Amino acid sequence: MATQKPALAKGTRDFGPKEVQKRKYILNSIESVFKKFGFMPLETPAMENLATLEGKYGDEGDKLLFRILNSGDYLKDLKEFQNNTSIDTTNLPSSTGNVSDLDSKAASKFISEKGLRYDLTVPFARYVVMNRNDITFPFKRYQMQPVWRADRPQKGRYREFWQCDADVVGSDSLINEVELIQIYAQAFSQLQIPYQIKLNNRKVLAGIAEVVKSVDEMNTIATAIDKLDKIGEAGVKAELTNCGYNDSELNTLFKIISLQGNNEVILQELESLLINSDIGSKGIEELQYVLRLIPNLTPVILDFSLARGLSYYTGCIIEVAATEGSLKSSIGGGGRYDNLTGIFGLPNVSGVGISFGLDRIYDVMEELNLFPNTVNRASSTQVLFCHFDEATQEYCLPALKVLRDAGIAAEVYPDVIRKKPIAKQLDYANALNIPYAAIAGETEMQQYVFNVKNLQTGEQTLIGTEELIRLINPFI
Amino acid sequence: MATQKPALAKGTRDFGPKEVQKRKYILNSIESVFKKFGFMPLETPAMENLATLEGKYGDEGDKLLFRILNSGDYLKDLKEFQNNTSIDTTNLPSSTGNVSDLDSKAASKFISEKGLRYDLTVPFARYVVMNRNDITFPFKRYQMQPVWRADRPQKGRYREFWQCDADVVGSDSLINEVELIQIYAQAFSQLQIPYQIKLNNRKVLAGIAEVVKSVDEMNTIATAIDKLDKIGEAGVKAELTNCGYNDSELNTLFKIISLQGNNEVILQELESLLINSDIGSKGIEELQYVLRLIPNLTPVILDFSLARGLSYYTGCIIEVAATEGSLKSSIGGGGRYDNLTGIFGLPNVSGVGISFGLDRIYDVMEELNLFPNTVNRASSTQVLFCHFDEATQEYCLPALKVLRDAGIAAEVYPDVIRKKPIAKQLDYANALNIPYAAIAGETEMQQYVFNVKNLQTGEQTLIGTEELIRLINPFI
Repeated sequence: MATQKPALAKGTRDFGPKEVQKRKYILNSIESVFKKFGFMPLETPAMENLATLEGKYGDEGDKLLFRILNSGDYLKDLKEFQNNTSIDTTNLPSSTGNVSDLDSKAASKFISEKGLRYDLTVPFARYVVMNRNDITFPFKRYQMQPVWRADRPQKGRYREFWQCDADVVGSDSLINEVELIQIYAQAFSQLQIPYQIKLNNRKVLAGIAEVVKSVDEMNTIATAIDKLDKIGEAGVKAELTNCGYNDSELNTLFKIISLQGNNEVILQELESLLINSDIGSKGIEELQYVLRLIPNLTPVILDFSLARGLSYYTGCIIEVAATEGSLKSSIGGGGRYDNLTGIFGLPNVSGVGISFGLDRIYDVMEELNLFPNTVNRASSTQVLFCHFDEATQEYCLPALKVLRDAGIAAEVYPDVIRKKPIAKQLDYANALNIPYAAIAGETEMQQYVFNVKNLQTGEQTLIGTEELIRLINPFI
Repeated sequence: MATQKPALAKGTRDFGPKEVQKRKYILNSIESVFKKFGFMPLETPAMENLATLEGKYGDEGDKLLFRILNSGDYLKDLKEFQNNTSIDTTNLPSSTGNVSDLDSKAASKFISEKGLRYDLTVPFARYVVMNRNDITFPFKRYQMQPVWRADRPQKGRYREFWQCDADVVGSDSLINEVELIQIYAQAFSQLQIPYQIKLNNRKVLAGIAEVVKSVDEMNTIATAIDKLDKIGEAGVKAELTNCGYNDSELNTLFKIISLQGNNEVILQELESLLINSDIGSKGIEELQYVLRLIPNLTPVILDFSLARGLSYYTGCIIEVAATEGSLKSSIGGGGRYDNLTGIFGLPNVSGVGISFGLDRIYDVMEELNLFPNTVNRASSTQVLFCHFDEATQEYCLPALKVLRDAGIAAEVYPDVIRKKPIAKQLDYANALNIPYAAIAGETEMQQYVFNVKNLQTGEQTLIGTEELIRLINPFI
């Protein structure tokens, strides 16, 4: 077969040893916090039936689903359909049998019935409904897995990326919101990322809409102010003017969402502004409760312009941003939603959840140099055993085993090198940032020792295996 | 939208909290051994270009690839092709424009250019070739990720399953074989699985073929004796008779592959039987070297009938089986292969690798009851704080935080229950196998204590937060 120049599929990435170590460091940190808060792991398959995925993410989302071609003779059903003129052809491809008349969207239902997971929320809802009789509610689950979207790839946006979600379903209590905010606080403190948590409530947004124009306008207002960061006050005002808002309405709106001061003060001011809105007052009450129960010093600020795009949120909405570095973008977000599982036949299950943006967190930590030194190494190896020939290599093997049995990651250079053996082996150790080389020559072998070289300082010492272990881990 | 009854895609599985805990226990055990032996992690994307995947797994494998439909107007290229009669149509679908004349296989090259990873070896080879200038060789990598095959689902065979591979590329040394065998030994000892490692060498198989009939017959013989477990000696003989083997040849073959005794003895006997085969003698030499360097007491036995299906192996071949329980099937396998990366333009890179069968290991451990108690719990929570009303619930929160700050996983029941509150909350704790409940009533709140109940023994004690921490972890 001819030689191929291999390439990655567009929008996908390999993660080499260094990147995996760092990504796992982040994932493990977040996971340890999830567990400490009583969340349990769930993993769902990459492939879901299209019936599960379609219609859940809007028309735009449906277009971004990766569809999997049916196995075997996948054209069979399409041909059968096209040869059968007795069935209803409304909204379906023509039955002329001519491929030129086919429409990609219409044809796909005949040749594809599975797709790749687009997020973790819909598979979670499916899981909950399918296992409703075995699950103990409230069900606190976390899930850390890749998802796929056929988006146009660009800097920082990939077609395969990880999501890390924690959700509670089957509990209306605001204690869950308090807990999820603390999960953010603990995880980002543990990762040493400077962060700020923004908090708002959809009911407050509804109240604002009611006071400004009408409660039905909530989505219009939310959609517009969601773009405040990108298009500025003038842009938002222009958009709402187009939607029929007058100056007085816009001034009321911006007076509210620009409230300044500490959380307590602006919540009091908002209370008087929304005094005539029941739903707004309920939202304020929820925010007051959550803020009161969050431990002191948690960096949470109210932001009434926070809307978060997805309209399925119904209560508190949360967003976290890094506060240092050039990447001040969102590193996490979430909120409360009602009726997550309704579409799958289990109505009235309220849920609240948060998500961590692994790629963004990675970029922030990289820029701020927050990965610990141990994580910055691709290899876990502490000692490389180096040698000159078969005999000295074999001499290394029992010591290698003793080190590993003591829990120390170690390796022996596998090949016997005839020309400049030590230089070549130290090159390998240095390339992998291995801290120690234990060199075995004729002399060392006769004395039952190794010439142990600290590859950072260059310091060398002739020691036996037990001393070598203590050198690396004095606590053993 | 109408209610849907949700289902899993055929051949896929959800892993609920208990299963994830157990699977992660296995994966983490294996990973810790990989790291101790100096292997570094790699992760490749789920989607690969079909150009990378096709032609690597034989015709059967190509059929089992999951192909992803191109995004957008995926029929465009197919239409264009069909409207363009000037291009070469040899071996391509007819250009009549009639879908009935299309063949699924031929059409797919127009509508799909990506597929799901079929194994971890081909993506690894692609990675090595693409990153050849940045990789330090020998490159020791491990990779633990799901793969997808459009196989007919059946008991124990899934369309999405995990592989856990460790490979060394760029080293011819047999020390790697010795190391990989020790990785198996350490990992299965750590998991407490009773196991046996079978060892053979393709060069020995070639030698046997040479002595029996001709060295070119190696693949025929290997393919036949690979089925010994399934079709027995009579079956294998029948198959080889069909291939033109006579009784004398079959007797020689079975005399060799039935050799009994300890490794040293049968290797000596084999040595004299293969004395006239250079390649056979080389294989014996390799086996002798590996066996000599493996630490004593490692349960390795020679098995000259071990062939392992895939014909790309060229040196040692390894297989591990559990030795207890009803599932005596293979739980791992591997071997040395040459020229893994040749197809991608990097010739003469030798590699050797092993694979762990996660699903099989899981089933064996489940049957033999080998999962530790801590892993058998779905939740990590040690203490559930229980309460009667808003006031007692709030009273729990500072204690909850102190426990978590001490590293103890804990949670508070989020909802306030009016009717039989403690019964309901203890049901939750028992369902999740949470070992302790810390109950806060009016009296406890006034005395700054909790009524802590050991949910296994029923024992109750009134203690403060510090005592509670010491009760759960006396070493803090």
